[in-house]
Amino acid sequence: MAEKRVYLFNEGSSEMRDLLGGKGANLAEMTRLGLPVPPGFTITTDVCREFYAEGGRTPHGLQDEVANAMSRIERDLGKKFGDEKNPLLVSVRSGAKFSMPGMMDTILNLGLNRKTIEGMIAATKNERFVWDANRRFIMMFSDVVLGVPKTHFEKILDDFKREKGVRLDTELSADDLETVCNLYLAHVQTEAGRGFPGDPHEQLALAIDAVFRSWHNDRAIVYRATEKIPDDIGTAVNVQAMVYGNMGDDSGTGVAFTRDPATGEKVLYGEYLVNAQGEDVVAGIRTPEPIANMQQQFPSLYSEFVAICDRLEQHYRDMMDVEFTFERGRLFMLQCRVGKRTGPAAVRAAVEMANEGLITTETAVLRVSAPQLDQLLHPRIDESYLQSNGIQPIAVGLAASPGAAVGQVVFDADKAMEWGRDGKRVILVRDETNPDDVHGMLASQGILTARGGKTSHAAVVARGFGIPCVAGCEGIKVDVETRMFSASNAVVREGAWITIDGQTGSVYNAKIPLIDPVVSGEFETLMGWCDQHRTLGVRANADNPRDASQAMTFGAEGIGLCRTEHMFFERDRLPIVQSMILAETEEDRELALDKLLGMQQRDFEGIFEAMQGAPVTIRLIDPPLHEFLPAYDELLKQVVELRVAVNTLGAEAIKTVLEEKERLLKTVDGMRESNPMLGLRGVRLSILYPGIVAMQTRAILQAAVRSHRRGIEAKPEIMIPLVGHVNELKTVRAALEAVAESVVSEAGVPIPYKFGTMIELPRACLTAEKIAQHAEFFSFGTNDLTQTTFGFSRDDAEGKFLQRYVQMRILDSNPFETLDVNGVGGLMRMCVEKAKSANPAIKLGICGEHGGDPDSIAFCHELGLDYVSCSPFRVPIARLSAAQAALKDRVKVAVDK
Amino acid sequence: MAEKRVYLFNEGSSEMRDLLGGKGANLAEMTRLGLPVPPGFTITTDVCREFYAEGGRTPHGLQDEVANAMSRIERDLGKKFGDEKNPLLVSVRSGAKFSMPGMMDTILNLGLNRKTIEGMIAATKNERFVWDANRRFIMMFSDVVLGVPKTHFEKILDDFKREKGVRLDTELSADDLETVCNLYLAHVQTEAGRGFPGDPHEQLALAIDAVFRSWHNDRAIVYRATEKIPDDIGTAVNVQAMVYGNMGDDSGTGVAFTRDPATGEKVLYGEYLVNAQGEDVVAGIRTPEPIANMQQQFPSLYSEFVAICDRLEQHYRDMMDVEFTFERGRLFMLQCRVGKRTGPAAVRAAVEMANEGLITTETAVLRVSAPQLDQLLHPRIDESYLQSNGIQPIAVGLAASPGAAVGQVVFDADKAMEWGRDGKRVILVRDETNPDDVHGMLASQGILTARGGKTSHAAVVARGFGIPCVAGCEGIKVDVETRMFSASNAVVREGAWITIDGQTGSVYNAKIPLIDPVVSGEFETLMGWCDQHRTLGVRANADNPRDASQAMTFGAEGIGLCRTEHMFFERDRLPIVQSMILAETEEDRELALDKLLGMQQRDFEGIFEAMQGAPVTIRLIDPPLHEFLPAYDELLKQVVELRVAVNTLGAEAIKTVLEEKERLLKTVDGMRESNPMLGLRGVRLSILYPGIVAMQTRAILQAAVRSHRRGIEAKPEIMIPLVGHVNELKTVRAALEAVAESVVSEAGVPIPYKFGTMIELPRACLTAEKIAQHAEFFSFGTNDLTQTTFGFSRDDAEGKFLQRYVQMRILDSNPFETLDVNGVGGLMRMCVEKAKSANPAIKLGICGEHGGDPDSIAFCHELGLDYVSCSPFRVPIARLSAAQAALKDRVKVAVDK
Repeated sequence: MAEKRVYLFNEGSSEMRDLLGGKGANLAEMTRLGLPVPPGFTITTDVCREFYAEGGRTPHGLQDEVANAMSRIERDLGKKFGDEKNPLLVSVRSGAKFSMPGMMDTILNLGLNRKTIEGMIAATKNERFVWDANRRFIMMFSDVVLGVPKTHFEKILDDFKREKGVRLDTELSADDLETVCNLYLAHVQTEAGRGFPGDPHEQLALAIDAVFRSWHNDRAIVYRATEKIPDDIGTAVNVQAMVYGNMGDDSGTGVAFTRDPATGEKVLYGEYLVNAQGEDVVAGIRTPEPIANMQQQFPSLYSEFVAICDRLEQHYRDMMDVEFTFERGRLFMLQCRVGKRTGPAAVRAAVEMANEGLITTETAVLRVSAPQLDQLLHPRIDESYLQSNGIQPIAVGLAASPGAAVGQVVFDADKAMEWGRDGKRVILVRDETNPDDVHGMLASQGILTARGGKTSHAAVVARGFGIPCVAGCEGIKVDVETRMFSASNAVVREGAWITIDGQTGSVYNAKIPLIDPVVSGEFETLMGWCDQHRTLGVRANADNPRDASQAMTFGAEGIGLCRTEHMFFERDRLPIVQSMILAETEEDRELALDKLLGMQQRDFEGIFEAMQGAPVTIRLIDPPLHEFLPAYDELLKQVVELRVAVNTLGAEAIKTVLEEKERLLKTVDGMRESNPMLGLRGVRLSILYPGIVAMQTRAILQAAVRSHRRGIEAKPEIMIPLVGHVNELKTVRAALEAVAESVVSEAGVPIPYKFGTMIELPRACLTAEKIAQHAEFFSFGTNDLTQTTFGFSRDDAEGKFLQRYVQMRILDSNPFETLDVNGVGGLMRMCVEKAKSANPAIKLGICGEHGGDPDSIAFCHELGLDYVSCSPFRVPIARLSAAQAALKDRVKVAVDK
Repeated sequence: MAEKRVYLFNEGSSEMRDLLGGKGANLAEMTRLGLPVPPGFTITTDVCREFYAEGGRTPHGLQDEVANAMSRIERDLGKKFGDEKNPLLVSVRSGAKFSMPGMMDTILNLGLNRKTIEGMIAATKNERFVWDANRRFIMMFSDVVLGVPKTHFEKILDDFKREKGVRLDTELSADDLETVCNLYLAHVQTEAGRGFPGDPHEQLALAIDAVFRSWHNDRAIVYRATEKIPDDIGTAVNVQAMVYGNMGDDSGTGVAFTRDPATGEKVLYGEYLVNAQGEDVVAGIRTPEPIANMQQQFPSLYSEFVAICDRLEQHYRDMMDVEFTFERGRLFMLQCRVGKRTGPAAVRAAVEMANEGLITTETAVLRVSAPQLDQLLHPRIDESYLQSNGIQPIAVGLAASPGAAVGQVVFDADKAMEWGRDGKRVILVRDETNPDDVHGMLASQGILTARGGKTSHAAVVARGFGIPCVAGCEGIKVDVETRMFSASNAVVREGAWITIDGQTGSVYNAKIPLIDPVVSGEFETLMGWCDQHRTLGVRANADNPRDASQAMTFGAEGIGLCRTEHMFFERDRLPIVQSMILAETEEDRELALDKLLGMQQRDFEGIFEAMQGAPVTIRLIDPPLHEFLPAYDELLKQVVELRVAVNTLGAEAIKTVLEEKERLLKTVDGMRESNPMLGLRGVRLSILYPGIVAMQTRAILQAAVRSHRRGIEAKPEIMIPLVGHVNELKTVRAALEAVAESVVSEAGVPIPYKFGTMIELPRACLTAEKIAQHAEFFSFGTNDLTQTTFGFSRDDAEGKFLQRYVQMRILDSNPFETLDVNGVGGLMRMCVEKAKSANPAIKLGICGEHGGDPDSIAFCHELGLDYVSCSPFRVPIARLSAAQAALKDRVKVAVDK
């Protein structure tokens, strides 16, 4: 016999996520724990893979196994599927290994037909309820299985209500609903070209197939691409006996978290609706009650529920997200899973659970994800700006996902994505969101919805992605047609700037400055645990004393990249830099360099002071010199205009201006490059124009000497960029070491300076054993290394084709965001091996943007680098990721033994 | 005791080149053979390294060893160094392992002083001869040892002659020459600040040091850099008893080759001067007699000499270059070495020697260098153009180095280099050249000298480098001051275009079209031998039927690279290509693609026909689309001008033109890239715009089908460029294979097409095991691979810093000319290993420009590639280099066993 394809809930456990999917495994676990779960079974994810392997056909023999399982349920409940008297109805739900909220399809009330409707009416004595259930069933089944869109049915219902002159569904009678059902069935016949299937077994078979098919629907594919969930793991199918929260005022349904998913506070958090089905809560159509109200309304139910929640948290040792229904006073658990949470909640819950002894500090560290931690570092609104400008919110909704966001209003997901791609900051404003909007939500700075609660689609997705969100903001009216929304005293058109505050729910009709976050408390505790566990050093990229101080605050252990040319671009310096570049004599050039010397020296003194003895890696000038001159196009435009003016208008007075501009144009033209990324920059520049880097080296050492005299230890690490051949490094290092030595020996002060290079070219990796003999440290410049390894110009690729590559799954992710382990990583690995074999004492780091990316940090840990360096705000992320990499490594080592 | 530092000539042999240098080893060999060689000794190259290791000081103990050797010579000749009666005089010459003609310093007549002059006069009874010898000695010694330039002495002599009213040196009497010697000595005292050393032993010690020092003079360094001779092998010093060709009319000196060095004909070839010293011949000051004249003038000497030459050729099994002197009727051999020869001579001599049984065919193949073979492929003058335009030469000189050259006249080496660097084609015109001119000669298309024979400096150097040269063109008068030269009926100023014909000696005052060479005879024989020995296939890069036919003529076995976009640039097609790119609807784009389809199909039919069943690798479109549109700068200029015209002049009529240009400018701006080399091109383009490559694939297959129907077998290999990730190749290949399959199955004709990719990105090499699973062949595009591995944009690097890098020895050579084996080669090696392990049947080639570079071809052989592909004219070079690599490999394997 083949593998077991169908597991009853009492046959599985939470360990079996791969096979049963998350939902199925947890339903089994709750069953195992003896909690009140309506009986059901799970068809394994293997069957989904079988389904696709057989070209989208039900695997042979599955039907029999399903029938067996159904009969077990029938026996348990004493009901029969398709029975005329007391029929069993079931829900059919997808459930993959990883939660994909709302991404796949669900069918409720399956098993209804002419006959079973009568049976249900007989059993429930509630004709209206049964017809309403049937109406929902026809709609969902037709949408999911027969491909007739839900919206069609909503329109039929709306039209019917308008005819009837009623506003709410509840105003419709049983007869009305029966009529609606008939209208639905007629529409299905026309639209789908077939009758609605009456046989419950046929319904079930079709529904199972549809769930499998839904694994490859567009929104599921997009979601998996975004979340990096593999395409081939497939989904399970859960078939479960129906229970009803809409059987009257002693029935209801709700969702809850065992701790507050927004703050992490240890308090039961959730919502419920009386006389409603689960989808009514999640869809955000009616606004539900807070869970605490249950205590008064249904005291015994409430205490049973609280006990179950406690039990689940103790059992899973994590904050849980549960769905429940009570039918005529009886509680049923329909789902439980580890609860999604905001960053602040993740940190607080992890730290508190560790302090409670529920989990270890290692687990606490592993339990907070980098994006969650990142949320703590999100900006917030500058309150003083509000006060001093007398700014009031135009509306206040629910604080659904933390952080403040500023952006231009857009009203649909496609436009959000389009504007986002153009580099605009947008806020997506919708009545409510649904899975089709996710691509636009991801492209937005923030999300504002007029309807839905804190567990509505918009809120859940926004929190998951760390996007600020204000939901259920009933004070606004969204009009997509005219591209505007109105609030009490404002009309906001598409493209206008607004600010939303996901912490307070406020919406402002203005572009309000945001403040960088300051963090403490549980955050500091967690960071401390991270530092205990990690082995990788964490430095920051900082070009000035302000960033350096910020980096120290966030726990950086040094500066891994200080870009000296950024100092050259400052307004008071650029003219001097330009006169240095354009100098016609050596004397003029020296003069300009002398002026820059003092300025750079002061820069470095400031940085050394901020770093208080921590090492500072200073990269010598890198960009091509023409970057410091006016743009060629701009000059060309001016010259052509001036030329026309002189020639046609005889404007003699401007002739000298023209001549001067023409001279400059010629110079700039001579310096232009076809591919500046691969041109005269980095060490090449230092070889052709040794004066600039000699000045920089002098400035660095003089600053170090002065700092030393002021009692501040300076540890400069001078980094020569873009070395591809050892002779480049040898040549430049020799010259600069002479400068450094002369400054130090003249001052008579010991300065522990080092020389090293940035590894940003494939050739440097390929010949690292040679280069390493002349460097005290290497720092991977993975931005450039990615550019040259792929042959991608980042400037061109990101706008022109990288996004398309990721969409088409040609690439798993943008290699400028996450290190390409197979390609670029292969070069890095080779470089590390060669460098260490030639120079075991060499210090190895990374200072490309990947230094702040969790996956890339894990790879750097695996490579055995000494440190990563990233932007100051990413430093906590790096500390966390480094600790997680070390802990996972430890687990791996333990397993290997 | 330390190593032996000094070898008498009878202690060495030709095997000891490393230690004794080429000159010393061959003098020893001739001595060993019993040929009449004046006695002498060689100080080893080890001593030169010792000299530099000790900071430029004579190694301890050397003087004693030299003194011992000197006393052996004294004993042999019965003369004494410094003797007042019959003194021994010696020459001191450098001699490195590799010949460096005229690059280092020589001193003749060393040992003369007040006393020995008297002794010499007593011994020779020729007072004038002795004073002339002394004059030459003072000049050479002062120049080489004391740093007083030769030109100073030439001026003193010229001034003296003018005062005396004489024109020729020979008109000066012994007394006159004594006076000149005294003037020289006085000048030395003033200029060098010291007296001229009188002690012969001091002279010798100083001279030996000076030869060692000359190893590092500027011209030696430049020569070594050009010829890739290591800097650290050092030179030997040869000290040899003087013999005199200027002792009267029964004395003389000459140089000869055992075969004609210009044509390879088996005939003694050379020149001699009666009553002259060797330097008079080489310097080209007097025009010498052809060697054949010796037969009448000195019959017994001549037959002795011929016998020696035969002996040497048989002994060395090669064409030899000898220097000889006869002193009072007695013949002395002063030097012998393997003779430098022109390309045609090398080929003819190698083939004839093999046919004579003197050498094997393997040796014949190894004996012709790639640059020599290249000379056979040099262009020649279009005679019909001369005739139809009635063009006559303005002067005729000696045909000193084959090939014709067209260029602008320059009069000094620096300017030649400068103009050459700017991309100008120049002809260097000089009275005569000297070692200081070499850098300018290398930068020139051709060389024209007014004086000197076929063995003059200009002729020797030009032949060595394969530069066309006309020497000894006495019909021209060169005036460097006024920057012009005059011929019988023409005045030619600097910058004017001339044409020289190194095959006939003709000089034309015009820019004459040149014709590509056609070769046969010994060339074909040699090529046949190459093909027997080589294992590497040779293909050509050809974009059209004409180049394809040319490639076939030169022996290509297929096309390794056919660039399809070159076809797009043709005048009648560019507008269609542009309309395809700018199409606003899919229909318009399809329309343009349809037009191109027919055109491309005809292109491919022509190529298939030319290749007659040989495989044709066709690269699909590679450059970014904006390359097909007008340049942004040009458009911007037009738009600004038009805008000014419309705005200030109110030229309403041109408003629509402006609007159209503005639209185009906007489009072009949108397509511009910061680094087009790393932008939207190659396979990326095919992924975003699949229509173009689908059209190309259809055109290729339709052409193959048509060819097949006409009886021509077509073997298209469709190459997808710039793949960095296997998914790129998978995606595009799948789409194109569908197109190909549909064409082929519709036609019902078997076409053996293949799909493969170009390997031009580091990432492709790093992940070759994945990519190889989806490719039937790889072709290394080493131009791009070099760009990305080094991070060098060729367009920018070659003009801006690569030359400087090579000058500074940061790089050994331009990596775009010779493969960088350590860096780029490392990636290639990795790629080959990974690809073969994943797909053992994969075919591997190279189609970058390195495919025609001998060193790079040797590396490709070592890597085990299947073929190299190069431009049609390099195909013979590639066949030769491939054969040589295989033969050297065989030798290596034999040695290893």
